[in-house]
Amino acid sequence: MNQERLRSILACMAERGLTQMILTDRNSIEYLTGVKNNPMERLYALYISSEREPVFFLNKLFRGPKTMPGVRLVWYFDADDGVKMLSECVDHAKPCGVEKDMAAHVLLRLMDLKAATSFVNASFCVDSVRGRKSPHEAELMRKSSLLNDEVMAEVVGRIREGCTETGLASELKDMYQRRGAETAFTIVAFGDHGADPHYGPGDTVLKPGDPVLLDIGGIKDGYCSDMTRTVFYKSVSPKAREVYELVRKANETAEAMVKPGVRFCDIDRAARKVIEDGGYGEYFLHRLGHSIGQSVHEAGDVSAINLDPVLPGMTFSIEPGIYIPGEVGVRIEDLVLVTEDGCEVLNHYTKELQIIE
Amino acid sequence: MNQERLRSILACMAERGLTQMILTDRNSIEYLTGVKNNPMERLYALYISSEREPVFFLNKLFRGPKTMPGVRLVWYFDADDGVKMLSECVDHAKPCGVEKDMAAHVLLRLMDLKAATSFVNASFCVDSVRGRKSPHEAELMRKSSLLNDEVMAEVVGRIREGCTETGLASELKDMYQRRGAETAFTIVAFGDHGADPHYGPGDTVLKPGDPVLLDIGGIKDGYCSDMTRTVFYKSVSPKAREVYELVRKANETAEAMVKPGVRFCDIDRAARKVIEDGGYGEYFLHRLGHSIGQSVHEAGDVSAINLDPVLPGMTFSIEPGIYIPGEVGVRIEDLVLVTEDGCEVLNHYTKELQIIE
Repeated sequence: MNQERLRSILACMAERGLTQMILTDRNSIEYLTGVKNNPMERLYALYISSEREPVFFLNKLFRGPKTMPGVRLVWYFDADDGVKMLSECVDHAKPCGVEKDMAAHVLLRLMDLKAATSFVNASFCVDSVRGRKSPHEAELMRKSSLLNDEVMAEVVGRIREGCTETGLASELKDMYQRRGAETAFTIVAFGDHGADPHYGPGDTVLKPGDPVLLDIGGIKDGYCSDMTRTVFYKSVSPKAREVYELVRKANETAEAMVKPGVRFCDIDRAARKVIEDGGYGEYFLHRLGHSIGQSVHEAGDVSAINLDPVLPGMTFSIEPGIYIPGEVGVRIEDLVLVTEDGCEVLNHYTKELQIIE
Repeated sequence: MNQERLRSILACMAERGLTQMILTDRNSIEYLTGVKNNPMERLYALYISSEREPVFFLNKLFRGPKTMPGVRLVWYFDADDGVKMLSECVDHAKPCGVEKDMAAHVLLRLMDLKAATSFVNASFCVDSVRGRKSPHEAELMRKSSLLNDEVMAEVVGRIREGCTETGLASELKDMYQRRGAETAFTIVAFGDHGADPHYGPGDTVLKPGDPVLLDIGGIKDGYCSDMTRTVFYKSVSPKAREVYELVRKANETAEAMVKPGVRFCDIDRAARKVIEDGGYGEYFLHRLGHSIGQSVHEAGDVSAINLDPVLPGMTFSIEPGIYIPGEVGVRIEDLVLVTEDGCEVLNHYTKELQIIE
């Protein structure tokens, strides 16, 4: 159990009047215990409290630690009533925090069992601590993104006549694997497919004049990368070039202003203004970015509704895009790590417009 | 909107005193609407009611239908308060069902907004309808498993000197892709790794005498397959052979008794008894099987705690195993489809003990 992280989470809970909480996000549990486990639909939970010993619920079918100093391990079988066992650890006379994605059947059952006086979404207390990376985590984020730079260079080098979206996506998987990483997600979009921000690769064959949008990310030593580049095959239309340069300017404008104290919403606004001023505001459909760490999307958007200030140690994406249906989609995305007085851009792959011959 | 399926779900809800429910499982939503969508951590919901028009909540960032007869479509932006919009559709004067995996932050917010008089886990009403496959779905399950038989034959043919677990896992992905399917999951375990029921492939190189446990599944046209075979490379020890034949007998005993009216727990018991009588009861660690359909694990275990009877149209796995740590793990798994008077085993790949030369 990482005592420093536990203390930070308990302190944040105390500010909200909470003495106890049930964690069910496996990344949160790994963050505190170091244990990697994925028992799928089965109950997986860590009970933490400022007054009682932590209790870690594990399913017998999945390997885990034999002992853990200062933590009570409860191993249950598939046929056991795991939620009832969990409820018995909770102080029934007090409210209890839960994580945002706890499954409704667990929460409703805990309520039925009157395990606590009330249940509160206390994810903020975990997410805000997880959100500020330690120097060690920052180094893992840096390495993961350096690896992603390498993969981007390799996959751009594989763009060639006759290649398909799914073909490149499959090559990408090997590229991560060869580097000891897993693929987190892959978007490879040719032509106007890039105009769908969440396009999934299909059998489309590359043709001259196509934009190639590559939004790729891997997981290395438990930390995620996420970068987008849009390159052009053989030629680029004047309009696509205009769109590209505008997106690049939005990306660079936003990155230049990231430093502690600046609000997420103001970073989003600045990037959006560049695109609006260029006349393409209606085609920038999504938030500017999202926090990232142990999972690709963590709590904390770079968006109009996040009024929080940026703090040192935070890592998030800056990914403006312009999506013109039936024509072209361009997105340029880097990860940034907030430092004491600015930010470090974790991706180094060129943002110059590239025409692949 | 599939009216027949909707009627069946509403009828089951009515038996439990419910007139309204919020679906949030994307497979359930696809089952009713035919719409495939995965907006990740964003709200995705279908409100159904016996008294009001259904309302379908979609995020603007993800493509979806322009219109849907008899359904009100609500498109929200990332910056909108989607849960509040959802709460406004619910009849506040009545209880409301939710699906088992609805995220706690959505449920707690709906409770705060007093969207209904109470919230109830009503997954049973959806799962019990989804659990009984229509003739069309049964045909899709059959085809998906036939494809899995082909992939099993191909991957067994690729077992060779020097191959690694991750290498075979990667070849498996291509095998599904070439057949127009996606990989659902892959377990490739050499040697004693098979003794961990949920082992993930590593860099281990195959060596003579190794058992090779292959637990593989794909998704074809929206329906999943799942089959396990354990074969042996070059030779098999007498103990491994004994274990193999016992697991096979447990598998065949269980499959022979599947017919409408038989209870899941009794099928589990029969397979377990074979293994107990053979002296290996303590090494059969898990439930005998799980329901399957649009997702690999659906509601309805074949286990000691499921006292429900088997019904026509149900599809589930029969997968006994013996796991002796440090020595050997053997699992043999087929999918079965319950017919009017028995069952159809959906996998045809041989269960004879195979020694790969």
